[in-house]
Amino acid sequence: MSEQIGFELTLDLGFDEAIEAVTAALKQEGFGVLTRIDVHTTLKQKIDVDFRPYTILGACNPALAHKALTARAEVGLMLPCNVTVEQGPDGTAPGGRTLVRIINAKGMMDMSGFGDDPAIREIGAEAAERLGRVEQNLRGG
Amino acid sequence: MSEQIGFELTLDLGFDEAIEAVTAALKQEGFGVLTRIDVHTTLKQKIDVDFRPYTILGACNPALAHKALTARAEVGLMLPCNVTVEQGPDGTAPGGRTLVRIINAKGMMDMSGFGDDPAIREIGAEAAERLGRVEQNLRGG
Repeated sequence: MSEQIGFELTLDLGFDEAIEAVTAALKQEGFGVLTRIDVHTTLKQKIDVDFRPYTILGACNPALAHKALTARAEVGLMLPCNVTVEQGPDGTAPGGRTLVRIINAKGMMDMSGFGDDPAIREIGAEAAERLGRVEQNLRGG
Repeated sequence: MSEQIGFELTLDLGFDEAIEAVTAALKQEGFGVLTRIDVHTTLKQKIDVDFRPYTILGACNPALAHKALTARAEVGLMLPCNVTVEQGPDGTAPGGRTLVRIINAKGMMDMSGFGDDPAIREIGAEAAERLGRVEQNLRGG
């Protein structure tokens, strides 16, 4: 995965524990989890297919979101910041590895052209800095 | 707003009616609304600021999402497809204009580099085609 899009790390935690750890690490940087899509449940319900445990968390730092939406209301098309948690393809063992991906807020703003606006560029950079700390904390750094 | 990011249209509907109309038009193209963030409510609750009515709907076509996630699991960082509904800055009159923005699924996949993968490019193009019909239907076309 290109670093422009996001960062990936693995956690030696079970799936549910990983979601808890990610949620706690996000909270520490001021991001609440506003939405949660349990992809495996949704796909089973809607089209009856089996998919491995995979959850999309929509994280939002309200102060940053407010600044961004005040500067450019259309930024809402790119909110909230996604973090995905996926059970590794190698199986379901307790304590097994879980993949976490965190969106690169700065990369996304730059790619989309929103970053041409200095206000948005600054907000994207701050969001990215905070999400970078979330990643570091999850890595135990 | 760049067309790479999304499309904007105005509806001569009140805010809540616009959300209903958008939800119905999405459903017609196989997109369910999986998440909903009422930004004005969230910002009031979390940081006590007043923001005009503004809602972010997370729309998902389960069959397309399944194909995309099977091809490239990291695509989850860009799901669901956002549609925003915003009360126009000109006021709150009943029947007043409401701004709707629909993400350009193809543009986002292309920009992010996911579109380099032929499977993803095809899925992005189909999603964009369907969302284009949502836009046309909302315009009454």
